[in-house]
Amino acid sequence: MTTAPDLFPVAPGIDPELSGLGSSLCAGDRRALARAITLIESTRLDHRQAADRLIELIMPRTGGAIRLGITGTPGVGKSTFIEAFGSYLTALGRRVAVLAVDPSSARSGGSILGDKTRMERLSRDPNAFIRPSPAGRTLGGVARRTREAMLLLEAAGFDVVLVETVGVGQSETAVSDMVDMFLLLLAPAGGDELQGIKRGIMELADLVVVNKADGDLEAQARLTAADYAGALRLMRPKTAAWTPAVVLASALRGVGMDGVWAAVQRHRAALDGAGELAQLRARQALAWMWAEIGESLRDAFRQHPAVAADLPAIEGDVGAGRLSPSAACGRLLARFRQSGGA
Amino acid sequence: MTTAPDLFPVAPGIDPELSGLGSSLCAGDRRALARAITLIESTRLDHRQAADRLIELIMPRTGGAIRLGITGTPGVGKSTFIEAFGSYLTALGRRVAVLAVDPSSARSGGSILGDKTRMERLSRDPNAFIRPSPAGRTLGGVARRTREAMLLLEAAGFDVVLVETVGVGQSETAVSDMVDMFLLLLAPAGGDELQGIKRGIMELADLVVVNKADGDLEAQARLTAADYAGALRLMRPKTAAWTPAVVLASALRGVGMDGVWAAVQRHRAALDGAGELAQLRARQALAWMWAEIGESLRDAFRQHPAVAADLPAIEGDVGAGRLSPSAACGRLLARFRQSGGA
Repeated sequence: MTTAPDLFPVAPGIDPELSGLGSSLCAGDRRALARAITLIESTRLDHRQAADRLIELIMPRTGGAIRLGITGTPGVGKSTFIEAFGSYLTALGRRVAVLAVDPSSARSGGSILGDKTRMERLSRDPNAFIRPSPAGRTLGGVARRTREAMLLLEAAGFDVVLVETVGVGQSETAVSDMVDMFLLLLAPAGGDELQGIKRGIMELADLVVVNKADGDLEAQARLTAADYAGALRLMRPKTAAWTPAVVLASALRGVGMDGVWAAVQRHRAALDGAGELAQLRARQALAWMWAEIGESLRDAFRQHPAVAADLPAIEGDVGAGRLSPSAACGRLLARFRQSGGA
Repeated sequence: MTTAPDLFPVAPGIDPELSGLGSSLCAGDRRALARAITLIESTRLDHRQAADRLIELIMPRTGGAIRLGITGTPGVGKSTFIEAFGSYLTALGRRVAVLAVDPSSARSGGSILGDKTRMERLSRDPNAFIRPSPAGRTLGGVARRTREAMLLLEAAGFDVVLVETVGVGQSETAVSDMVDMFLLLLAPAGGDELQGIKRGIMELADLVVVNKADGDLEAQARLTAADYAGALRLMRPKTAAWTPAVVLASALRGVGMDGVWAAVQRHRAALDGAGELAQLRARQALAWMWAEIGESLRDAFRQHPAVAADLPAIEGDVGAGRLSPSAACGRLLARFRQSGGA
């Protein structure tokens, strides 16, 4: 760490070790990066506080990456796609990081990115960095750590960050709320097999990639692409600047990666040209702040003794239709306030 | 009001006028119903408290209606459809109420249901009751009043409640969160015209009704129905008990109302059979309660002097990417708590 330039000189109030970590991270030191991510993932209070200071320190150096979300149902070839697409990008000279949001995976379980054998080539690539999903029981906690890891990666000079989701619960929405562009990966399928996309996912997609468009499946892939292009035409685009597109790819053969990357760049140019990227990121950051505030306030409310005592009975009455939600809200808030809550 | 049976006898702590209003309402007195809705729509604190007590009183008599949400882009013939469908139902002996959620309409403006000429026949029907959207600047406030009006209507014996939305902002989601089944009304259209459905709406639909399936448009209506049926097949249904369907109708000619009603009844039977209706309503009621609690807590937070003073600068820093959302949350919460907040 002493070899890194002193980007963040020791200043009053800043822990010298922390500024050293920040400097090494920004100089691209992979071990410093890994240590920093471990720090932001910790739930220990002193680690949390150090993490907040570290993020504050590196904040001016963030924002430089293309942030891409990616989802797809199991069996669609997501790992193979990320391996092929990531390697395509590093061959172009890009520095690529892969994160994941999977609240269902315990860290040790390694269900999603825990073992890097899933993306063997990319994990050995010096211009790539793969980090498994942080552990956590709540989606909110997992999403926060992933967002902060993304900031660290940007400070470390990664210019494409892929955030993968396994499609459990609301994780696609959480990922879509932290990225610039959202990719939906599909496999060729027909008829009843088509019913696999969870409701709400197609609405998030800026780009649909039909993978496995090779060999016997190529004709079916074209039909699938046409089906989804048709479905996308029925919906109003998220923004006037970009109309969702459908492209074909074969990650296994490394075919179509140029088409995916061209679409990503067209999307970026369109949003930049319309001044929408900065707006999108500002909206995302403010929504994230308010979501965290709301969660903290609700937790304090739930755990307040005057509320906690009555909550189960009141929730039971509301659920059974015996008590109106508004009356229940009024009753709980009155108790909270009488007992010194806000 | 003296002619109504004393459903709610005078009891300690219950205002006799309020219990009289409740009794008249439950006896089906339309003037009492209108007065009760006016009471729940009032923002005066004493009215709010009386409204809460009234709702608590009539709560055991609620839940009996089929709650239907309905949306559609302008020009699709929504008023004509509601008029035709409502009249079809009253002819079957049903008692039908029509509510609306339109946060953009000032009451006096009457943009949506303000003048009943929009549904002239239904508005004169003794078995129908039409109420314009309550006024209100926030969707949350408008939605709360509409939900409470729905409870009053159920207590008054209406067995089908249609909640219309004009498709402004997030109102479809709010309506979908208060009904049993959500109808999307479409007009026949082809090619580029198809891009009219706001993203997220198709995902909410339990039933798609292609209206204006008459005369020259009939063939086009069949194509539109096939397009949407295809798109719906690409998405996983909201529940295993019900697969979204597409039906054709001509509200102008009164054709297809039986098909819509049959689909509504099939949906109800499917959800009832799987025990999902009670679960859905319990989830909706609890989500409503927590949304109201969250809103109240956030309002108290925002208005707290220690928070309000710094909020604009902090929001500016977060929006511009100079401050991380987590750090901003931590900073604001620390001030709130130091100054006596929860």
